[in-house]
Amino acid sequence: MKTVEGGVCAAKGFWAAGVAAGVKYQDRKDMAVIYSEAPCVCAGTFTSNVVKAAPVLWDKEIVEKSPFAQAVIVNSGIANACTGKEGFACCQAEAEAAAKSLQIPENSVLIGSTGVIGMQMPIDRLQAGIAELAAKKEHSAEAAFAAAQAIMTTDTVDKQVAVSFEIYGRSVTMGGMCKGSGMIHPNMCTMLAFVTCDAAISKELLTKAVKESVADTFNMISVDGDTSTNDTFLFLANGMAGNPEITEEDEAYRTFKEALCFLNTAMAKKLAGDGEGATALVEVQVKGADTKEAARLLAKSVICSSLTKAAIFGHDANWGRILCALGYSGAAFEPEKVELFFESKSGRIQICKNGSAADYSEEEAGKILSDEEVTIVADMHMGTETATAWGCDLSCEYVKINADYRS
Amino acid sequence: MKTVEGGVCAAKGFWAAGVAAGVKYQDRKDMAVIYSEAPCVCAGTFTSNVVKAAPVLWDKEIVEKSPFAQAVIVNSGIANACTGKEGFACCQAEAEAAAKSLQIPENSVLIGSTGVIGMQMPIDRLQAGIAELAAKKEHSAEAAFAAAQAIMTTDTVDKQVAVSFEIYGRSVTMGGMCKGSGMIHPNMCTMLAFVTCDAAISKELLTKAVKESVADTFNMISVDGDTSTNDTFLFLANGMAGNPEITEEDEAYRTFKEALCFLNTAMAKKLAGDGEGATALVEVQVKGADTKEAARLLAKSVICSSLTKAAIFGHDANWGRILCALGYSGAAFEPEKVELFFESKSGRIQICKNGSAADYSEEEAGKILSDEEVTIVADMHMGTETATAWGCDLSCEYVKINADYRS
Repeated sequence: MKTVEGGVCAAKGFWAAGVAAGVKYQDRKDMAVIYSEAPCVCAGTFTSNVVKAAPVLWDKEIVEKSPFAQAVIVNSGIANACTGKEGFACCQAEAEAAAKSLQIPENSVLIGSTGVIGMQMPIDRLQAGIAELAAKKEHSAEAAFAAAQAIMTTDTVDKQVAVSFEIYGRSVTMGGMCKGSGMIHPNMCTMLAFVTCDAAISKELLTKAVKESVADTFNMISVDGDTSTNDTFLFLANGMAGNPEITEEDEAYRTFKEALCFLNTAMAKKLAGDGEGATALVEVQVKGADTKEAARLLAKSVICSSLTKAAIFGHDANWGRILCALGYSGAAFEPEKVELFFESKSGRIQICKNGSAADYSEEEAGKILSDEEVTIVADMHMGTETATAWGCDLSCEYVKINADYRS
Repeated sequence: MKTVEGGVCAAKGFWAAGVAAGVKYQDRKDMAVIYSEAPCVCAGTFTSNVVKAAPVLWDKEIVEKSPFAQAVIVNSGIANACTGKEGFACCQAEAEAAAKSLQIPENSVLIGSTGVIGMQMPIDRLQAGIAELAAKKEHSAEAAFAAAQAIMTTDTVDKQVAVSFEIYGRSVTMGGMCKGSGMIHPNMCTMLAFVTCDAAISKELLTKAVKESVADTFNMISVDGDTSTNDTFLFLANGMAGNPEITEEDEAYRTFKEALCFLNTAMAKKLAGDGEGATALVEVQVKGADTKEAARLLAKSVICSSLTKAAIFGHDANWGRILCALGYSGAAFEPEKVELFFESKSGRIQICKNGSAADYSEEEAGKILSDEEVTIVADMHMGTETATAWGCDLSCEYVKINADYRS
């Protein structure tokens, strides 16, 4: 497996575009399309929030009922959430416009929106944007980049990854883009992510691979504990690599899933590291938990702790807050067995042994915590299960961004 | 029922003191005692965190097994949490010192600690502090004030309330003090709170009243979602009011419980309003939920939402974040039925109707959100259950305080 360029356009037969349609923002790209030359097998996971945005409701139906999907229309600026029937009618209008411009069936059009909740969408601008996207779409890295830019909100960088690998002797390519910076606490998943792939794979196995991979990647990140109304992960596979269709959990399936997990982990880390106001990507590795569920609970509890996050922002080795967060996670363990370590490119030190302070240098700990990527390792000594979660520190900038988001 | 002065010294027979013992802070009071002339019936609730501080383990045993309690020794600066056997031995030494100085049984001494986690306690200073507390203790409002000051950490004001009321024709007084500003997400409860009362009441009914009252008061506040290792609520009743002992759930019990709920609500609001960095006390009233549990989940979810809190700090009527937080609370409801209102002394406006934007003035909303006490009302239209939760906004100051707490 090797990483390649091209994001959602890396795989054969996928085209993209990004344009400035003036949905809400005035001076930047805010609409994107992903289009496949061939019909795609499709799988998706969506927010667990009771309040689901209109595009989430639309996509769930397409993923469950449509024979195939062939395009995704995405806008930033307005989330089309809490918009009632008018919001759902807007999805319908977008799908109609896309079907006409791209000459594909209406029920093969998926939709994603991200931005302010509660505001209605300007349908005419969306329709004009879709026509422009259809005209501009290309199978190129530049087009994938434009699409990745167009879906950003408070993101500071575009987020793309792509890999190529072999199955059944054929070269297959898988590429993705995602966005998200605040309201990030996936369950499933607090952001928009789109993956394209030219492999042929059955809908059943694609759905299984997506579900399992998302549980260990996007669902293990948190920026602020707020599970969004719009979380959407969509996977489109168009089969244009020419491989025999994957229909069993064989070597080819395992290779495919490994590539998917690599891609999703890379995208999840990009989201966490670009959390609103973040100065550091924080990784929490839990080892020695007694169950997988406990390992996940423990890792997510630490990554969500405001006090731990603020301490990391301050480069302060306040490990008691980490032990405290493990303690209120809901998982059972024996505090006096816990060992904690800090790791970064600057080194690795033990900060807690048998649940009490280890003999460490505050200066060395401060140095490790000053790096851009910091890992907290918690060894519970209760069993053999592990889990990893990703997040970021909590800075004043996060508050500033969110005190004034709509203005 | 009327409010009176005197905090934990308001009730007959209760003495207090606060001194500067140099436990960790150098220039301020950091140790307090509450002492009763007569042995007390005692009830308590403690943190649900798996990682429990040594004083929590100590107090749980006293509350469960001792025939009575007669004093509480509290220190700020060091939490005596994650301190292993040495930490528990320190509680033992404190109880011994207090028993000697106050001439009461060792197993009638309760202990509370708050401050940095993971640091060992300086036993000699604590012992000296206890001797000084015993010598200085008084039955006076000044002494109660000194004690309330001594238990503060990042609190900006002391927190005391007291009320007097009648049961069985006798005047009874109940007074409390509490502290807490960060690591506030009680379950039970993220802070230290101590209530004294001169009523005579059976241990069984006192325990019941305390448990039920805490569920609706301290357990409904959140500053930062971090459930502390040290949460402790203790109630001491010495019977010196001379009333016939309350042993049944009669009118006297109901009056007693009403007073307790009033006191606990007042203290809980003081904690929430003095949350680290807070500029506003936020109250969330959920109405029309289908179950009490759902009402509590919904109210706590909104009060815990970082994005909602940051929006209130910015005086931004971003109600979509409130609906979003209701949506991920875990409670089931129909989004299109929800109504949202903002209330303060400046007025009341509806911001969301049938799950979509209501027609309101942003200017008016901003004015309401600029007040020091802001109420969010969420009417779910699913049933008749209600719950109220309290918290505060999220400011840059919160991050600053917690990025640099230990230094």
